[in-house]
Amino acid sequence: MLKKLKRILIGKPLRNEAGKNEKYTVLWGLPILASDAISSVAYASQEILLVLYPVIGILAFAQMTYISAAIIGLLIILALSYSQTIEKYPNGGGAYIVAKENIGMFAGIIAGAALAIDYVLTVAVSISSGVEQITSAFPHMKSMTIIMCILLVMLIAIGNLRGLRESARLFGIPTYAFIIGMVWLIIAGFIKYVNGYVPVEVTTKAIVEPITIILILRAFSNGCAAVTGIEAVSNAVPNFKEPSRKRAKTVMLLLAITIFILFGGTSILANLYQLVPGEKAIIIQLAEQVFGRDFMFYYVTATIFAILVLAANTAYSGFPLLVSIMARDGYLPRQFDIRGDRLNYSNGIVILSVVATLLIIAFNARVTSLIGLYAIGVFISFTLSQSGMFLMWIRNKEKGWRHKAFINGLGATVTGVSVVVIAISKFGEGAWLVVFLIPIFVAIMVRIKNHYKAIALQLKCSHRELVKVNAVRKSYDNIVIVPVQSINKASIHALRYAKTISKHVIAFHVATDEEGKARMEELWKESDIDVKLEISYSPYRKVVEPLLKFIREQDCDYVKCETVTVVLPQFVVKSWWQWLLHNQTRLFIERELLKLKHVVVATMPLQLKSDDEILEHEKEKEYRREEKEKKAEL
Amino acid sequence: MLKKLKRILIGKPLRNEAGKNEKYTVLWGLPILASDAISSVAYASQEILLVLYPVIGILAFAQMTYISAAIIGLLIILALSYSQTIEKYPNGGGAYIVAKENIGMFAGIIAGAALAIDYVLTVAVSISSGVEQITSAFPHMKSMTIIMCILLVMLIAIGNLRGLRESARLFGIPTYAFIIGMVWLIIAGFIKYVNGYVPVEVTTKAIVEPITIILILRAFSNGCAAVTGIEAVSNAVPNFKEPSRKRAKTVMLLLAITIFILFGGTSILANLYQLVPGEKAIIIQLAEQVFGRDFMFYYVTATIFAILVLAANTAYSGFPLLVSIMARDGYLPRQFDIRGDRLNYSNGIVILSVVATLLIIAFNARVTSLIGLYAIGVFISFTLSQSGMFLMWIRNKEKGWRHKAFINGLGATVTGVSVVVIAISKFGEGAWLVVFLIPIFVAIMVRIKNHYKAIALQLKCSHRELVKVNAVRKSYDNIVIVPVQSINKASIHALRYAKTISKHVIAFHVATDEEGKARMEELWKESDIDVKLEISYSPYRKVVEPLLKFIREQDCDYVKCETVTVVLPQFVVKSWWQWLLHNQTRLFIERELLKLKHVVVATMPLQLKSDDEILEHEKEKEYRREEKEKKAEL
Repeated sequence: MLKKLKRILIGKPLRNEAGKNEKYTVLWGLPILASDAISSVAYASQEILLVLYPVIGILAFAQMTYISAAIIGLLIILALSYSQTIEKYPNGGGAYIVAKENIGMFAGIIAGAALAIDYVLTVAVSISSGVEQITSAFPHMKSMTIIMCILLVMLIAIGNLRGLRESARLFGIPTYAFIIGMVWLIIAGFIKYVNGYVPVEVTTKAIVEPITIILILRAFSNGCAAVTGIEAVSNAVPNFKEPSRKRAKTVMLLLAITIFILFGGTSILANLYQLVPGEKAIIIQLAEQVFGRDFMFYYVTATIFAILVLAANTAYSGFPLLVSIMARDGYLPRQFDIRGDRLNYSNGIVILSVVATLLIIAFNARVTSLIGLYAIGVFISFTLSQSGMFLMWIRNKEKGWRHKAFINGLGATVTGVSVVVIAISKFGEGAWLVVFLIPIFVAIMVRIKNHYKAIALQLKCSHRELVKVNAVRKSYDNIVIVPVQSINKASIHALRYAKTISKHVIAFHVATDEEGKARMEELWKESDIDVKLEISYSPYRKVVEPLLKFIREQDCDYVKCETVTVVLPQFVVKSWWQWLLHNQTRLFIERELLKLKHVVVATMPLQLKSDDEILEHEKEKEYRREEKEKKAEL
Repeated sequence: MLKKLKRILIGKPLRNEAGKNEKYTVLWGLPILASDAISSVAYASQEILLVLYPVIGILAFAQMTYISAAIIGLLIILALSYSQTIEKYPNGGGAYIVAKENIGMFAGIIAGAALAIDYVLTVAVSISSGVEQITSAFPHMKSMTIIMCILLVMLIAIGNLRGLRESARLFGIPTYAFIIGMVWLIIAGFIKYVNGYVPVEVTTKAIVEPITIILILRAFSNGCAAVTGIEAVSNAVPNFKEPSRKRAKTVMLLLAITIFILFGGTSILANLYQLVPGEKAIIIQLAEQVFGRDFMFYYVTATIFAILVLAANTAYSGFPLLVSIMARDGYLPRQFDIRGDRLNYSNGIVILSVVATLLIIAFNARVTSLIGLYAIGVFISFTLSQSGMFLMWIRNKEKGWRHKAFINGLGATVTGVSVVVIAISKFGEGAWLVVFLIPIFVAIMVRIKNHYKAIALQLKCSHRELVKVNAVRKSYDNIVIVPVQSINKASIHALRYAKTISKHVIAFHVATDEEGKARMEELWKESDIDVKLEISYSPYRKVVEPLLKFIREQDCDYVKCETVTVVLPQFVVKSWWQWLLHNQTRLFIERELLKLKHVVVATMPLQLKSDDEILEHEKEKEYRREEKEKKAEL
């Protein structure tokens, strides 16, 4: 049943050979890699206003212009910096790799942890924001927010488990549709304003408090969301058609220009139209005023929703790949580096979906609450990645290194300052959580790495040890113990097996009362089995302890690698509910036995037929016996 | 950690020999066996009024008198009937046994299911009512109702898991304290009334609707709660000192008299004082009016609370015993018939506590809601038990059988009519649930029984089969397959073991890509191990399927009971979190393998040392190597 459902949702398993990726051109690479970065436009201006407006009222619009300008400056520096990363890392230069190679392992795993957290937040923020746009346009759907978010995450997760990469072009169209819609909205908005349109509600909210630096910094921090996702292009260089570096750099440039136009345009229009963030999202308000409730209004709403869902989807290509690389290096559980049926890193996809869903539920799908945690992780990884690049130029001193080191150094400084700004100004709003989580994750990863290291050391074996295997012979005298509860088919099977693997077989019975002991002794004598029976009386009704004690008492030459094998029969029942009807003592005994050295637990299955079959058969036998008796009487 | 906590809460395990019960005299038998029945007095009158008062207002008091009289009549018939059961079943005559022996297995399990449900309800109702009395006296504790209930259930469960039976006298004192307090309250109440006391609030609620039969029947059904628990004496005859039957009958008589006085007395006083069930429990109101907020008021509150908790406790002696008997007969999972560390049926105790807690939470600890489900189960078991007795007299025709058959027949008729009355009048309030649950439970029990029967048939083996064991020799040629992922200590250990148990060992490797296959072939050649390596290429990255296929292809003489043994290495890690770092493929492989016949899964543990130890050791080795090199240089 479950397997069937999985097949329907995920599709048939794919062969290894099917794992070849489609390569991007500039035309299709831009929309696929840019949806996360571009989609931030849908909420960045709004989140700036949400900080400013309640405090300084109408003055917020002027301040927003300055802050937007600062963020666009940041965007330009980042675009330049990352172009250099593309040049040096044609195989993909995620922050984890760049920091690891140029600063050190420790910086690498910090960047990795920060990035992983932010991927999760990208999903939570984008989906919550996408649903918010929809409920702004259709307010009667507000009560279904959480359920819509969860369904969307599930949908994206299933899509990614199936493997969406094949249909990459499907992703390009909504992104272009969004860009076109937004550009149209901005142009139409300007034209309408120039033609003398007076905004519907000119806000008159008074100034509550004076403008403070911390207020401006908080607004700036929220706006930083607009530049997140820009690193996606540099991670994906190998996915471009040759010349891949050149194409990737072109996409980076186009991406920067697009964000510049869309973010700048909406910020200015929000100012001109004096849009106040409230029940409805800013962009939805803008579209309503510019277009009215007309086709273009629904078009903008639909494409914003689509691009936000796509943005969540980009985290699904980033996160599983990141954790798989870190798992390969031994910093995360190895399961993250296993490809699933459809050749993707399915464990990463599942974890990402589960954590993002929990976050959405915990924060009630409110973008404003989630944004407090967002961005800091991305900026930490920006800083580490740019610092790594900076150190590389300084060390290698290639041609033109001064100029290049300056750009990456500037990038590192600017993003480093942003990290401090975000950490301080949003500490109370949730950044503290991320600030605490990163060192915890780093500590966990170090312990995981140590564990794998220790295991590898313990598993290593010399050639001398290998050759020792050849000296082992079947004549070795292993001891085989068969715990026997009563004399039945299961124990008989176990005894037979035991006799085929050793001459030294002992049946072992635990009696929980004196009568039981006597009864078992007699039964054994009657049965005539040529195996020695050992009975242990257990007044505390323990089953495992006497067995462990008996094993310890055995005299085994462990240097000659003789072992004690314990043969345990196991019923294999037809359905799950029957499983509940048997004491699962075997599992318990096995767990305890495996703690001993030189013990092997051999499990013998005994397949049971269906109850009805057996009872039916028994009835027939009974019937035939009766018939016979009747005949005999006649 | 968990084990330690268990030791502290539950105590040290007890030896089998410690399981001897203290025997009761009449003096201590009465309070121990009667607390359930007597405690019902604390809520029975109230629940009658709760049905009547809102509908017929002040007329309720007169009706209550008639209903109470009917219930006392029922009580007398039951006491007589059960005295006869005591006479015939000196080893304890629970409804399950009496119905099973005299009517049939089917009647027995219906009675058992009904009784089991009612034991659970006894716990839920008594604890909820006990807490209700406390919150009536101290209204500011109302918000903590649920948590108090849960803590009490846990407390009783822990007490029973420890084994409370030793301290049986501890139970007698609160019961006597309650009886004395109630008698005092009734006498003082009458005296005060006769001396001309005018009740605080004479109720003046008008009649809303006319008196209907269904209304009276519903009130009667609620009142039936007063006689539940009366069967406890007849179940426990063997726990009395000799002459046990005589003592048990005396206790039954005293019990009936006590209920008669307490229930009758409070019903009449509730009438005289015109007590209206509301925020406060009836008896608490009565105590407040009779005594004022004086010592005796708190005394009555405390003893009512105590006896209700004790009543819940009686379910803890009844339920685990009942389910253990039914488990022994094969109608319930065998785990219910295993004695725990402290010699009690711990699984029954745990299940009872969990289900009762869930009920309390589901019904928000409201007695009035729970009472809807209550009583019907008890009355079904009363009816079946009395019918069984009736049939026995009719069949055996002992001396005086006519007279005795009449009494049990009357009992069966009266309780049978009550079942119908309760089922109809309280159907909407929850009785439907019990009416549906009983057949479902019966169906489940029949399937369980069939399963155990089928297993027993499959496990039976003839003497011929037994003797076959003696023919088995070590020379048998079992095939041993060792799945090898890479060449390391774990696989080497497994290969060594394999060679000690058979001459026919095959190493089996699953390659998920072509390069892996070539690499493994080369490594194997280099290693020089004299075992054949079989490599299977699995393009879908499946691990188990190729192994299963390979096993099926082996040519084994199963008639000669040759087997295929698969040796699987298993890491045994130091702490739980490390467990998460390994694919649990072994468990998965084992599960699939056990579905095959003639396969044995041998698990080889590989104990891992602590990470720190290994890494420390490696560091030292490194250090020594460096020292050596330095010396060599000098």
